[in-house]
Amino acid sequence: MGPGNLILFEGPGKDFILRKFPVRDLAPGEILVKNLYTTICGSDLHTYCGLRHEPSPTVLGHEIVGEILAIAPTHAGTDLKGQPIKPGDRITWSIFASNPDSELARAGMPQKSDHLFKYGHALASEPEVFHGGLGDYCILKPHTALLKLPQDLPMEVAATLNCSVATVAGALRMAGTIAGKNVLITGMGHLGITCAAMCRQAGANWIAAADISEKRLEEAITFGTDAIFDLTNGDETALHYLRTQLPDGGVDIVFDMSGSASAMQTGLQALAVGGIAVWIGAVFPSAGLTVDPEQIIRRLLTIRGLHNYNYDDLIYAFDFMIAHWQRYPFREAIEKEFSLSQAQQAFAYAVAHKPLRVGIRI
Amino acid sequence: MGPGNLILFEGPGKDFILRKFPVRDLAPGEILVKNLYTTICGSDLHTYCGLRHEPSPTVLGHEIVGEILAIAPTHAGTDLKGQPIKPGDRITWSIFASNPDSELARAGMPQKSDHLFKYGHALASEPEVFHGGLGDYCILKPHTALLKLPQDLPMEVAATLNCSVATVAGALRMAGTIAGKNVLITGMGHLGITCAAMCRQAGANWIAAADISEKRLEEAITFGTDAIFDLTNGDETALHYLRTQLPDGGVDIVFDMSGSASAMQTGLQALAVGGIAVWIGAVFPSAGLTVDPEQIIRRLLTIRGLHNYNYDDLIYAFDFMIAHWQRYPFREAIEKEFSLSQAQQAFAYAVAHKPLRVGIRI
Repeated sequence: MGPGNLILFEGPGKDFILRKFPVRDLAPGEILVKNLYTTICGSDLHTYCGLRHEPSPTVLGHEIVGEILAIAPTHAGTDLKGQPIKPGDRITWSIFASNPDSELARAGMPQKSDHLFKYGHALASEPEVFHGGLGDYCILKPHTALLKLPQDLPMEVAATLNCSVATVAGALRMAGTIAGKNVLITGMGHLGITCAAMCRQAGANWIAAADISEKRLEEAITFGTDAIFDLTNGDETALHYLRTQLPDGGVDIVFDMSGSASAMQTGLQALAVGGIAVWIGAVFPSAGLTVDPEQIIRRLLTIRGLHNYNYDDLIYAFDFMIAHWQRYPFREAIEKEFSLSQAQQAFAYAVAHKPLRVGIRI
Repeated sequence: MGPGNLILFEGPGKDFILRKFPVRDLAPGEILVKNLYTTICGSDLHTYCGLRHEPSPTVLGHEIVGEILAIAPTHAGTDLKGQPIKPGDRITWSIFASNPDSELARAGMPQKSDHLFKYGHALASEPEVFHGGLGDYCILKPHTALLKLPQDLPMEVAATLNCSVATVAGALRMAGTIAGKNVLITGMGHLGITCAAMCRQAGANWIAAADISEKRLEEAITFGTDAIFDLTNGDETALHYLRTQLPDGGVDIVFDMSGSASAMQTGLQALAVGGIAVWIGAVFPSAGLTVDPEQIIRRLLTIRGLHNYNYDDLIYAFDFMIAHWQRYPFREAIEKEFSLSQAQQAFAYAVAHKPLRVGIRI
């Protein structure tokens, strides 16, 4: 195995560095993957812009599709669904390698286990460098959940499975029953549009999308939403509509994918009695937001936070996407493609134009 | 039936007025009760002090035990547990008369139905005056859930069932599994001590109580708590203890019975990953509190508000109290007793001395 290319990120405002590194030998239970396609997630952009902090240098990119090159001894040789895997198979994998013996993993939160390893978030220090999406290879650690991909699922669609789509699946799990419910989604990036389509397929009664981007709201319509609200100039119109038009005076569920304090506040105000807000977007430091406990109490509201996902969510995401990717324009959500050596341009484009996703074809 | 005495509350700062009113005839489905005992709830005191607003004049008091005098035709003649009722039976009843056909009632939230009527909270306007605990009689409207009380359950203990104890039962329901969990309770008034005892009986692993009153913390020990924290001078010691002593770095469940913004914030900080905060106390206007959505998200936290309770909770409260009232000093929680004509002194005493409860023996 010759050396492989890697894009090193050394901190906000610094140029990406393209370097070659030798590929180390596999340890027991590891898998060597040739990366094929990586989509750039909102959290990659947050790190790139300095809105959140990761160790550096690092190799960004965690929404990855690759092809198995080698499987080290002691690996069980099956994916998360129990299918056998072999070199040549196309796969994606969980954003984290979890410790299955940790208490939190056993409690259904493998993403919060001790000794957690997260692809695309770790310090790149030789020989541990191939652990992100912006490189030719990735070495998968033991206890990484794999999913063997069907050949007809486009790589650019499959790449989003292990972060955006699985997290949305977790959000639906936390929200409880979706069938028959009225739903508001604030923030129509890739998580928002995926949430709309997933709620639609789960039998939601009515799905509203809110954002401050006209383009994103237009896209939301193609992902199964019934109504769109532009919150650019405040939320009064949206709230008024929700309160007067819906039979029970508000929505049953609000998903916040925006991370905006005002969007989260709008969402709480839009909830009907007994409603639930699931917060996902705000995975970065902020000044926080003021909530009114009397309203939360008198209106029997629930707020739940979710970061990443568990294995059930990843399987739900996989099954959802296999079944429905052609029903919605998920392929078109990857609005522009770049090569690995163009990674810097890809990030600059994503920041400037805010597409749902940009893709890196490796 | 001669006229009955009634204590009218005409607004914060105004003297109570003792007046006699005739008892009107019963409408179909109603029940006439001779009030025997009323305990003064924290929300009565909030209204009395002007911290929250109710229509006036009103008849305060909703934690009531009475004896059935008459049952009007069309009443089903059974209590919430299906037991037959008859004149002479001692009962307590739900704080609300709910519309069983409303959507929220059908969704398990009868306390939020349309056309809701709440005892001890309604405008007293002739002939509709006997609907509170501070009077000789109470006329129970259709769709009021009754519970026939065993003779050996002290009236002063039974009086707290339909508000404090049932609300705590609802809080445990919202928190999910209690068995094996580490619990923090902030605010050790009557709800707090009841919560401690109920969590103990439900199999909690470890129960901590927090308050700013040394007296209340001492009482908390007698209601099944394992540890007490005085938050008077800030919460750092408590938080430090929780973080260092507990195996998973925090508590699984925090119940806030205090309504204090700083207590609710302390509670959120004390939660372990995946923990849940149930807020009950803040049933009055406030400046709100700042929450950090990143913490809620990264630590997979849940916040749930509860106001009042549903029928399952009332039954749980009843069964709990029948089984365990002698195991804890619930009787001593009614620290002082007054007569109906001493209602003004009873409220003044409660405000000045903050006993767990004062009782009015009618």
